[in-house]
Amino acid sequence: MKNNICVTILMLTLFVSLCFAQNEKANIKEDFKPSVLNQPGQEYPQVNSQGYARFRIFAPEAKSVKVTLGGREGTILLKSDDGYWTGTTAEPLDEGFHYYHLIVDGGIFNDPGTLNFYGSVRWESGIEVPASDQDFYALKDVPHGRVQQVLFPSKSTNSIRRAFVYTPPDYDKDPKKRYPVLYLQHGWGEDETAWSNQGHANLIMDNLIAEGKIKPFIIVMTYGMTNEIRFGELRKFDIKPFQTVLVDELIPYIDQNFRTIADQPHRAMAGLSMGSMETKLITLANVDKFSYIGLFSGATISMDDVNKTPGFKEKVKLVFVSYGTKEIDWMIQRGKEFTGGDPRENVESLKKAGINCVLYMSPNTAHEFLTWRRSLKEFALLLFRE
Amino acid sequence: MKNNICVTILMLTLFVSLCFAQNEKANIKEDFKPSVLNQPGQEYPQVNSQGYARFRIFAPEAKSVKVTLGGREGTILLKSDDGYWTGTTAEPLDEGFHYYHLIVDGGIFNDPGTLNFYGSVRWESGIEVPASDQDFYALKDVPHGRVQQVLFPSKSTNSIRRAFVYTPPDYDKDPKKRYPVLYLQHGWGEDETAWSNQGHANLIMDNLIAEGKIKPFIIVMTYGMTNEIRFGELRKFDIKPFQTVLVDELIPYIDQNFRTIADQPHRAMAGLSMGSMETKLITLANVDKFSYIGLFSGATISMDDVNKTPGFKEKVKLVFVSYGTKEIDWMIQRGKEFTGGDPRENVESLKKAGINCVLYMSPNTAHEFLTWRRSLKEFALLLFRE
Repeated sequence: MKNNICVTILMLTLFVSLCFAQNEKANIKEDFKPSVLNQPGQEYPQVNSQGYARFRIFAPEAKSVKVTLGGREGTILLKSDDGYWTGTTAEPLDEGFHYYHLIVDGGIFNDPGTLNFYGSVRWESGIEVPASDQDFYALKDVPHGRVQQVLFPSKSTNSIRRAFVYTPPDYDKDPKKRYPVLYLQHGWGEDETAWSNQGHANLIMDNLIAEGKIKPFIIVMTYGMTNEIRFGELRKFDIKPFQTVLVDELIPYIDQNFRTIADQPHRAMAGLSMGSMETKLITLANVDKFSYIGLFSGATISMDDVNKTPGFKEKVKLVFVSYGTKEIDWMIQRGKEFTGGDPRENVESLKKAGINCVLYMSPNTAHEFLTWRRSLKEFALLLFRE
Repeated sequence: MKNNICVTILMLTLFVSLCFAQNEKANIKEDFKPSVLNQPGQEYPQVNSQGYARFRIFAPEAKSVKVTLGGREGTILLKSDDGYWTGTTAEPLDEGFHYYHLIVDGGIFNDPGTLNFYGSVRWESGIEVPASDQDFYALKDVPHGRVQQVLFPSKSTNSIRRAFVYTPPDYDKDPKKRYPVLYLQHGWGEDETAWSNQGHANLIMDNLIAEGKIKPFIIVMTYGMTNEIRFGELRKFDIKPFQTVLVDELIPYIDQNFRTIADQPHRAMAGLSMGSMETKLITLANVDKFSYIGLFSGATISMDDVNKTPGFKEKVKLVFVSYGTKEIDWMIQRGKEFTGGDPRENVESLKKAGINCVLYMSPNTAHEFLTWRRSLKEFALLLFRE
């Protein structure tokens, strides 16, 4: 089971660099604006209304400067007499968030113009192409919850570990009110900062709560790379160390230190990519602890998994599976077989067996964070309804 | 008054790059270890037991790679056949935290080996030289408070602004307990992340509380660069926009959303460098709101200031002034006059007038964060004692 999920994630992730719309060769509109993720006062990188990105780097003595975005080959920048290297992607980028870095004279550096985000086991540069539906994760004048850094003791790893906890806007209004909890995992090479920094999980929640679309719940985000494995070694992934941290150490800590409803019906787990693999393995081994399962861009649950898991049908209230349409298209166009089964067929087979299973497809996105922002929103709408 | 403080801060800050011990030419011990601020799995930069730093950067096609640490000229790295550029500082660095960046072929980039910290109005690379007294800000197995990101509405700036709030470990144990509050400001070019990231304010508090040395209090850290001024323009600094945000918007928000003791005797303000200037101006204009004043490496309060401020003697319980010894030495060695008065003389004159005024000198540190970590600890020990 593990190996199959790994192969799917491996293929989907390799595909990130190929996920740009390749049909358009339209004239490039000169309406470029600084990316919203730029450092204060920085004019570059910029994005235009078509999704083209333009980069500008000062390195007067450099021989070559390249950006790892803009198609398979990236974007090669050209130097002007003023020492600045400039270039525009050959094609528009997908809407949403993209990681990238520079290659300056053969060395890997970040773009000094923009903020850094932890991905690929390093702090990477980030750029944001405004999405047509960006309103659902926008910073608005609504009541805001908090993102709290907690440091919790972990005997199994002999360390003090970090988690971020989202508490909803009304958390401190009524000291007797208790809340359900979603444990939300990042992908390979990311860390516990990803879901609030890249994912805007807190703003997605604030907006859904302000619109009255969901009942408030707590989100807990912690570091899931307990194995310190390299990307190609994902299939060696052993869930036990992280399962011990999450189930035996973090959950009791959260239940003791936050006003949670500390039972199975009010506890959910979800994750993206590698985090979906962790979610699948941990929830199937702990159906007495989690009632809602969210699998974003990676693992799916088959009837075989269900049949091997005593109590699944009685205890699990929701299996939510999501992908970006470009992830699925990519697999189909290349005639790739979904290892672990076609997620769409898995979802159908669970539905037929009377299990509440939902498939969400994020329009025109690939194995990137806009898929996961949307997935979190759609998943949140279905949580803790009973 | 403002101009004088600005000139002092300007001189002290320019002096940062000169603050390295210049006497030692001892043999360099080959006991280098990765800096504790390195990104996961990164071997460089390294620091040895004498405080020398060694850097290693991959850039096979580069013409020149320089590091802005290690004396006035920085450290020039030399290239090996494997494409790596390596170099060691000519002198040991001071103990504690240092900002730096690379200059690769004339362009400014961060060291891909280490974490970034916001300073100089950009995310800079950071390196840590272990300090002899590092235990007071170490991450230990003690109860930990939380650092909470809050987003608060600001009508005066027509924006939603961010603050980080430290709540002590017992904050959620007793929903009726209320706490005093310290408003704590960063320096020029830094932001609201500085005091927890570079300053370890939360760990300093956790440790002091665990040792029973202080009564728990809340710390609030927000962005003080409301003017978006450049460094050379500090003397144009107008305190009004930030004073409005802090006093009229943030304090009421904090008092409404956290269990504070919302009165003058239980409210303190402190800041480092530019933040000390803000602290002086805001507290003198609001002695009915703040009873404890902490001025780290910048502003001091003279008897002239006291005499111009009605109610000061009755209402202000503590004026705490601190510097690194190397900051003061630098001024003296160069025969510089302290604009705004010699802080040591100002402290003495306030003491003679019966005002509770304390001068703390951080041993062998300059205008850098180890001075301010120590200053926060010493200041915290004196707060809210009545």
